[in-house]
Amino acid sequence: MYSSSGDSNGYHQDNKQQLGMSHRDRVRRARAKSRDGYGEEQKVTPCTEFDKAYFNSYAHVGIHEEMIKDHVRTNTYRDAIFHHQSLIEGKVVVDVGCGTGILSIFCAQAGAKRVYAVDASDIAVQANEVVKANNLSDKVIVLHGRVEDVEIDEEVDVIISEWMGYMLLYESMLGSVITARDRWLKHGGLILPSNATLYMAPVTHPDRYRESIEFWRNVYGIDMSAMLPLAKQCAFEEPSVETISGENVLTWPHVVKHVDCYTITIDELESVTTTYKFRSMMRAPFHGFAFWFDVEFGGPAATPINPRAPVLPTAPSNNSPMDGSQRKKRTNPNEALVLSTAPEDPPTHWQQTLIYFYDPIDVEQDQLIEGSATLTQSKENRRFMNINLRYSSGGRSFVKESVMR
Amino acid sequence: MYSSSGDSNGYHQDNKQQLGMSHRDRVRRARAKSRDGYGEEQKVTPCTEFDKAYFNSYAHVGIHEEMIKDHVRTNTYRDAIFHHQSLIEGKVVVDVGCGTGILSIFCAQAGAKRVYAVDASDIAVQANEVVKANNLSDKVIVLHGRVEDVEIDEEVDVIISEWMGYMLLYESMLGSVITARDRWLKHGGLILPSNATLYMAPVTHPDRYRESIEFWRNVYGIDMSAMLPLAKQCAFEEPSVETISGENVLTWPHVVKHVDCYTITIDELESVTTTYKFRSMMRAPFHGFAFWFDVEFGGPAATPINPRAPVLPTAPSNNSPMDGSQRKKRTNPNEALVLSTAPEDPPTHWQQTLIYFYDPIDVEQDQLIEGSATLTQSKENRRFMNINLRYSSGGRSFVKESVMR
Repeated sequence: MYSSSGDSNGYHQDNKQQLGMSHRDRVRRARAKSRDGYGEEQKVTPCTEFDKAYFNSYAHVGIHEEMIKDHVRTNTYRDAIFHHQSLIEGKVVVDVGCGTGILSIFCAQAGAKRVYAVDASDIAVQANEVVKANNLSDKVIVLHGRVEDVEIDEEVDVIISEWMGYMLLYESMLGSVITARDRWLKHGGLILPSNATLYMAPVTHPDRYRESIEFWRNVYGIDMSAMLPLAKQCAFEEPSVETISGENVLTWPHVVKHVDCYTITIDELESVTTTYKFRSMMRAPFHGFAFWFDVEFGGPAATPINPRAPVLPTAPSNNSPMDGSQRKKRTNPNEALVLSTAPEDPPTHWQQTLIYFYDPIDVEQDQLIEGSATLTQSKENRRFMNINLRYSSGGRSFVKESVMR
Repeated sequence: MYSSSGDSNGYHQDNKQQLGMSHRDRVRRARAKSRDGYGEEQKVTPCTEFDKAYFNSYAHVGIHEEMIKDHVRTNTYRDAIFHHQSLIEGKVVVDVGCGTGILSIFCAQAGAKRVYAVDASDIAVQANEVVKANNLSDKVIVLHGRVEDVEIDEEVDVIISEWMGYMLLYESMLGSVITARDRWLKHGGLILPSNATLYMAPVTHPDRYRESIEFWRNVYGIDMSAMLPLAKQCAFEEPSVETISGENVLTWPHVVKHVDCYTITIDELESVTTTYKFRSMMRAPFHGFAFWFDVEFGGPAATPINPRAPVLPTAPSNNSPMDGSQRKKRTNPNEALVLSTAPEDPPTHWQQTLIYFYDPIDVEQDQLIEGSATLTQSKENRRFMNINLRYSSGGRSFVKESVMR
C-alpha cells in the first residue's frame, strides 16, 4: 500500500523535504479520483495555485511548532477528546487537516478503532512517520490529499478538526470540514468542535496609537508630523493580528456569525453580513474594532444549539446589550468545553484581529455605535478575506474596506 | 522647482500614498539622465525589478519607525554628526538613502550649509514634507531617485549614510555610497561611517536547540522524534536573524571583511571570501556561526585605517587568537565613535545573523575549528546573498550553502 520510492510514483515532493528521506515509505495516497459513495451533486472545489501555496505553507515545521505550543489550543482539544471518550472509543474518526497528527494520536489514545488523518500539505509525510514510530499504523491511517480527493471506504462516527483561522473564517478551512461531514459522517455522529462563534467589539487602544502614530510628533526633538498621514495609512490599512486585553474593549461583543458545524453549508461561508449596535460603556477614543472567536466542543447533533434562539446575556442591567446577539460570554447549559480567543481569556496564537480607523472617534459613555460588517471570500484567492465595515457614531458615518491576505 | 501637481508630471506614485495628498508639492526629481560631471567610465547599475521591490519596501512606515526607534543606531549617528560638527558646519553633505530625512536634519542642525537627501523609495515624499514642516527647505534638498540617477551640481564635503544590512552586506546598499563617493566627494572629504567590519564566531545555543529541536522528542507525552529531520531542515536552512548574548560565543571573533569606505570598490563587494581558524574557549555543543558587524565614525581619509595592518588584540595570553584578524574588539587609537551590533553590546534592530548546522558538533576546550566562508551577491537578485560555509573540527568536514533572501 505504501510506495517504496519517492521517485517512481509521480508524487510531488518538495526538494527540501526529500533530503535524507528519499527511500523511506511514503504516506498512502488518495486513489485517483474514483468517487464511489461521493454524491454526484456534491460541488468539488478545484485545487487552485493559491490552495497549493496554502498547503505548502503548512509543510514548514514552524507553523506546527507554534500551534502545538499554543497550550490553550492543544490542551483544550485533548480535554475535549477525553471528555467525549465514550463517543470515540471503538469508533471511526476522521481528522481533517491533521498536520503532524497529534489530534489523531490523542483520538487513538482515547480508544478510537480507526483514525483517518487527512492533510493535503506535505506535513502528512511526517505525520505518517510519527504514527509509525508510535506503533499506531494499525489505527491511524494518514491520507495525503484534500478531503475532496481522498477516499475513505466507510462511514465515520466522529470528525475532529482544528480548522479555525484568524477571525475564525480566514483560511476557509471550514469548507473542508463540511465536505468531510457530507461525505462520511454517520447520522448522529459527533463533530469536534460542534459550533463556533465569531464576535466583534469596538476597542480603544491608546498605547498602540501613541507608539505608532503620536510617536511622529516628536522624534529626537524633530517635529515629524508630516509622517502622520503615511503612518496612519500604513499602520491601519490591513487587519492587524495582535493581543489586546479586556480593558481595550468598550462594550459587550456582538455575534457576527454563529456556525453550527452540523448544519453550516459552504455557500453560507462565501459572505457573512451582520448589523450591529453598541453603546460604549465608557468615554474613550474609539480606535477600531476587534474580532475574535470561540468554539465549543458540545455533544452530537441530537441537541444542537439553535442560533436563532440566543441565550440571554448576563450583562449588568445598567449596561444592557442592544439585542440578544450581544453578550459577553455565551452561557453554556451543556457545560461543553470552550476554546476561547477572547481578549479577557488567556492568549492564544490566534490573538485577536484588529481593524483600526484612520482617525479615532471620541465617544462618550452610552454613545451609540452602529453599522454593519461584511466578510466575503476574496474572488482573487478564496483563502483571503475582504472586510467591509460601515460604522456611524456621533452623527458621522464611515466605510472601511480591508483585505486580510 | 517643485511640481505642483502629482498628476501631470508622469511621476510614479503608489496609490496608497496618494490618498489625501494628491495636490501637494512633490519632491524634486532627478533630471532625465543627463550625466554632466559623471565620469563616462562609471558603471551604472541598472535598476531591476528586484531593486524596485527593494525601494518599495522602504515606502512602508514601519521599517522607518523600527530604525528610528533603534536608539543605539540613531543616537550613535547623531553623536557622530555632532562629534564631527567642525567638518560639517558650513559644508555640503549628501545623505545616501535618507529615508524620513532624520540624519539630514541632524546635519542641518549641526550647521551644514546644504544637505542633499537622496532616496529612491517613495519615502522621499515624506522626507520632503518633514523638511518643509521644519522650515529647512533652504538647507535640505530631497532628491527622489537613485544616487546613480540624480544630479548634484557641486562637489560635496561629507557623505553620510546608514547603509548597513543584516550581516553588514545584505541589501547591497554600500554600492550606492561608493557611487555617491565617486561622483561627488571632494578630495579629503568625510564619509560617515568611515569604515565597517564584519565578524564571525562559532556559537553554542542550547536553549534554542532545545526549544526548536529537542522539543519534538516529547510532545504532550507523544514521541514525535520523527519530526526531527524536518525540524532541523526548516529551522536551520536559512540564516536566522536573532539576538544572542556574549555567552553564546565560543571564542574571539574572526574578521570576515574590513571595509574602508574611502577605498572600497563595487567589484570587491561581489564576493567576499575568508579563511578562519578558531580554538573553542570551552567544551560545548557547537551549533553554528554568528555574524555581526560594527562601523566606525572616524575622521577624513587623511589617516585611513589600513586593513592590511591589523591592530593587535587584547585577548588574554592563554587564549591567544590564531591570527591578527581575530580579535574581540578593535582597539581604537582615534577614539572614534563605534556603532556595534556585537552580541556583548546592547541589542539593535540588526540583531545577529545565525547560520546553524543540521547537527551540533561537540567541541572540547581548545579544539580547533577551521574553514572558510564566502559571501556572494546572488545572481538572481543582487540584494540577496549566497553564503558558502566550510568548516572542519575533530576530523569531520562540512559544507553548508544558504541564501539570505
